[in-house]
Formats: sequence, C-alpha cells, structure tokens
Amino acid sequence: MHKKLFIPGPTEVLPEVLEAQTKPMFGHRMKEASELGTRVIEKLKKVLGTKQNVLYWTASGSLIMEASLRNSVKKGVLNTICGAFSERWYKMAKANGLPCGKIEVEWGKAIKPEMVDAELATGKYDVLCLTHNETSTGVMNPVEEIADMVHEKYPDVFILVDAVSSLTGARIDADKFDVVLTSTQKAVALPPGLSFCTVSDRFYERAATVENRGYYTDFLLMRKYAEERKGQTPSTPALSLLNALDHQLDRILEEGVEARYKRHSEMAAKVREWAGRHFELFPEKGYESETVTVVKNTKGISVADLNSKLAEKGLAIANGYGKQLKEKTFRIAHMGDLKPEDVDEVLGAIDEALGL
Amino acid sequence: MHKKLFIPGPTEVLPEVLEAQTKPMFGHRMKEASELGTRVIEKLKKVLGTKQNVLYWTASGSLIMEASLRNSVKKGVLNTICGAFSERWYKMAKANGLPCGKIEVEWGKAIKPEMVDAELATGKYDVLCLTHNETSTGVMNPVEEIADMVHEKYPDVFILVDAVSSLTGARIDADKFDVVLTSTQKAVALPPGLSFCTVSDRFYERAATVENRGYYTDFLLMRKYAEERKGQTPSTPALSLLNALDHQLDRILEEGVEARYKRHSEMAAKVREWAGRHFELFPEKGYESETVTVVKNTKGISVADLNSKLAEKGLAIANGYGKQLKEKTFRIAHMGDLKPEDVDEVLGAIDEALGL
Repeated sequence: MHKKLFIPGPTEVLPEVLEAQTKPMFGHRMKEASELGTRVIEKLKKVLGTKQNVLYWTASGSLIMEASLRNSVKKGVLNTICGAFSERWYKMAKANGLPCGKIEVEWGKAIKPEMVDAELATGKYDVLCLTHNETSTGVMNPVEEIADMVHEKYPDVFILVDAVSSLTGARIDADKFDVVLTSTQKAVALPPGLSFCTVSDRFYERAATVENRGYYTDFLLMRKYAEERKGQTPSTPALSLLNALDHQLDRILEEGVEARYKRHSEMAAKVREWAGRHFELFPEKGYESETVTVVKNTKGISVADLNSKLAEKGLAIANGYGKQLKEKTFRIAHMGDLKPEDVDEVLGAIDEALGL
Repeated sequence: MHKKLFIPGPTEVLPEVLEAQTKPMFGHRMKEASELGTRVIEKLKKVLGTKQNVLYWTASGSLIMEASLRNSVKKGVLNTICGAFSERWYKMAKANGLPCGKIEVEWGKAIKPEMVDAELATGKYDVLCLTHNETSTGVMNPVEEIADMVHEKYPDVFILVDAVSSLTGARIDADKFDVVLTSTQKAVALPPGLSFCTVSDRFYERAATVENRGYYTDFLLMRKYAEERKGQTPSTPALSLLNALDHQLDRILEEGVEARYKRHSEMAAKVREWAGRHFELFPEKGYESETVTVVKNTKGISVADLNSKLAEKGLAIANGYGKQLKEKTFRIAHMGDLKPEDVDEVLGAIDEALGL
C-alpha cells in the first residue's frame, strides 16, 4: 500500500505530475529538447523571482553543492554546521581537498550572523556555505540576515546556499546569494533526479579563474550549453523528469508562489501548535522550519512503532535523523503539494495511535 | 508528432517502461528503496554476466567516467582518442588536473592493441581509458583484445571502459576490465538520468589509496551505501527511473541477453548491407559498430533535408557528429528495443525520400 509521505523528501508527487514523465522520448539535441530546457529555465526564474542565471543538473542536489565548491574556493571555505546536511558541505570540501574551516553549533540551534562574522574576520575564507533549512534538526537559518552582514563587511566573499528542503516552500531572496540550489524531490514535489540553482554573474567570473572545476561539475560548461545550445546540457539530461518539472512549474505558477509559501506556513503552524501541546519543538525558538517540523520526543514514545501504526493507515512520518536524533526526535514534513487537511489527517492519526 | 528514434540515444522507450515511472513515490531510506536498489543491482549483474560489483548513479554516464578517473589516476592516464566521445575522457582528465597523455587516430579508425602497447611501454601510465563504441564514428574498438594485451604486459594498469552506446546491445566481457560503464538511454532503452557500472575488487582497493575522490564521485562511499544500506545511495536517487529500470531489466532477461545481442547484429547487418549498396561505411572495415552505423555521404545528399522528410513520416535518424562529420556522414542507430522490421521501415523511407 502506498504511504502518503510526511517525510522531508521525497515528497508526495501528484498523479498528473508522475504521468508527465510518460511522454514519448525525443533526442536531447533536438529542437524539442531546447524548447523544453529553455521553457523550464524561464519558469524557474519566475518561480524563484530571480534576475540571475538558472542552471539545471541531472543529479541530486549534492552534486550542485560539490560543483559550487569546486568552482569557487581558492583561499578557503567556511562551513557552518548545525546538523547532518550542513555538515555535508564540510565533508565535500574535505573530499575535494579544498582548504576549509567550520563553525559548529549544537544540533537544534541556528547559525547567526555574529558567529559567521567572527570567523570571517580571520580573513581565511573567500567562500561561505550556508544551509537554509537543516532537514535533520528542523532549523531554518537566517541566511538573508547573514548575507546582509557579509555583503556589508566581506563583500568579496562568495555565498553558497543549500536550499534543498526549502526552495519553493519557504521564502528566500535568491539574488542575495551567489548560488542557491535545490533538488526537485522536496518542496517542488517531483520525483528525485533533477536539481537546479541560481547563479550570480560574479560567480561565473570567479569560476573562470579557478582550476580543476571538473567536467560534470563545470558551471562554465553548463552555461555555455544553456546559452549556445539554447537550454541544453553538456551530457544527456533526464528528459522524462524535465517533462514532469515543466508540468509542475505550471502548477506552481498557477497556485502562485506567494500562495504556496502561505500554504506551507499554515501547515507548519498547525504542526507546531500540535507539537507544542503534546511534545516540545526541537529547534531553537524563532528558527523553526516552514517545511519540516522536528519534534522532541518528550514522552519517550517508540517512533518506530508509531510509524508502523501510521503505515497501516497509509501514512508515513520520519524518525529522527541519524544515530544522534533517532527516537529522540521525530519529523513531520509539510512540504510540496500537501495541504492543511493532509496535515490534519496525519496529526489525527498520530493522536489516535498514541491515545492523545 | 512523435518521431521513432534511430538516433544513437536517447532511444525509443516502450510505453510500458515509460509507465513504470508513474508508481507513487516512496522514501529513499525506506525498505521499498532498499529492495528496489538491491533488485536492480542483482538483475544488472545477471544482464551483464558479471561476477563483479555493480553500482548505479543518478547522472549521465559522463559522471561515472569522471568518477572512475578521480578514483584511480595517480601517475597518469592514457586516453585513446578516435572520435568525440573517446576525446571526452581526455577532456575530463584535464578538467580534473590529472596527469594524462593520449593516442589519437584518424576519426573512423579503431584503436589497436599495438598502439596502446607502444604508449604504455613508456611507463608513464597507471590507468588506461577505452571507448567500446565510439558513437561519433560508428567504430567499435577491440577493447577485449586490448585488455588481453594489457593484462599480459602491464598487469598493474587499470582499465576503464566507456560502453555507453553499446552495453546490452553488443557483447563485452565486463570482467576483463576494472570499470565498464553505461547510461540507460542507449541500448538499455530507458529514459536518460541513470547510469551504472561494473567495478573490480582491485579498483576499490586502489580508490582507497587515492586522495580527493570527491563526494558524489566517491566509489567507496557508493559501495558503503550499497552494502550497509542495502542497495541505497549516499544521496537521493532517481526513484521513478529506478522503477522503470527494474521493469526494463525484467524485459531484457525475458528476451535473453544472447537474443538481444543477436537482434542487434541482425539490425546492424541490414543497415550495413543497405549502406554498402548506396553509400559507403565510414568506419574502418572489421570495426563497424553493432549499435549505430555511420554512413559516408558519398552521394552528397542533404542529410538535414532527408531528416525533414523522414520527420514527416514520424522517423528520425542522426546527422554526422559535430562540425567535422555533419553532412559528410549520417548515422542510423539500431539499438535498444528497435526490431529488424523497424530498420526495414526507416531504410525503406530513406529509399523513398532519396529515390534510391
């Protein structure tokens, strides 16, 4: 039996979006592919409200994280760790032999402008990595505030943002950053396999001065194909997923981006209110995520058992992330095309299962 | 109108395979995902007739090419260039700052064991890159003969093979090589977005001694997830495409791999016979591809016009590759799930269009 997904990605995908993957195949160098790629890029720009360039990749969002590091870091990259996914930036810098440093806060806390300021002041860094929505802890970091501080005090530092589990579900002003990236299987509500990002002009200029950007990860090669071959990519893209994205972007534009944010806020408010009544919120107050709520398991329930009971009703939430938070927390995601009534359904089912 | 694809990828995808992408979504850390990943890997091993390990990636085949270089090259990599795609190995080595050298033959010619021998004898290399089927020229290189020579004379040299446009359409003994990779949108006849490869045990041992393997490209991290998390990957894979691959591998096993090779041979023989009657074959005699036939345009026809006429009948062939071969050659692919009668259809349509 299918389980309706209240996990922080992959999210529920509507039947009509799944169906959009079934169009007959065509060549990735044919006019159809250029038109599709161009259309998708234009719609993405509208949805993200960006004046910047947009690129799409056939890969998970991790690939763009790694690519953006390989295309920009020279002196050093500052990683801001507040959970498992923000830590991924750091692991990637290490895995690519890039000079790096880090700030770490206790899981559940947010990264604040003053912490970043203190570390950038050392002068050791030319790139800063941020995580908009830390999926493991349910913390939404104040990335715009951090960007304002950086632009004022360290205007030459490039800012890369992982917005994998937030983009299109929570507001972010992409044009304040050099790269803002996401995958499609989160708030965009598509099957996984595609990812995309905004790119500042100065990021491309920077990339042109960086050695060993790689091939699949080369932002300049990606831009060259997007421009000269009109919406195409250097190697064959996931065409069936692009068809689905094309369809889903129409849906998002039809709903309206503001309405989409509002719907996410409403769902988040419901889950927070419920969690506050029965448990506690895990994230630091004021930094709760708009797309996934992480609940502290103050009652010591068995999350695994709860999920088994929910499964019988065709529902799934997520256990806490990794060894550190499993069973100590649980996560209810409210992103993508889920509606407030879906949230009511899952909360009601949890109440029933736990006798709340 | 849909055009039936006689281009060297993406290839025609059967409606039932496209439909397999529409199963409702599930979590990439759920049991369903492990079962799917494990099942796909086991079926791939059967289809490839390999005793080696198999990994799958969410990306085009280019990503695995790049990854295999980043996980193995220390002293230097020898690239063997006979067309645009074999040249990609060289470009990738350069783009990653890896020490490299090359052999180049005239486009249309094959790479021979003695050429490789002469260059490996310099002692400058620890990795050799080969291209099984050079899609731009229609040459199928004698990669097994080359491997036999290398194993005998240079047993420490690792051999990486791009089999993107041949695997499952033409026979290759994967276990003679360290990495044999392909994408799914060619002879496997799936939509693009996934790729997979065989991996030798000694390749993993080697990788463990190589620095800066990257994150998305790290073979050891991929193996760790495939083993410890049973068929999973470090970041979210293209689940809808994996569902389609799962379905298509059943179809391939049902047809039988030998029968699949035979069908490809029959189609290739038809196109070669036709080309020999009206034009000339572009590849060196004895090295013609089993999956795509490249025809020398000895009549000086307009390939673009021919393709326009074919399009009216719902058919598409490919022009020659790149500036060098466009209009001077044209390509008729016969791979994936196409049948001999499809080949008759396209050849008949070309005859009619050209008045042959």
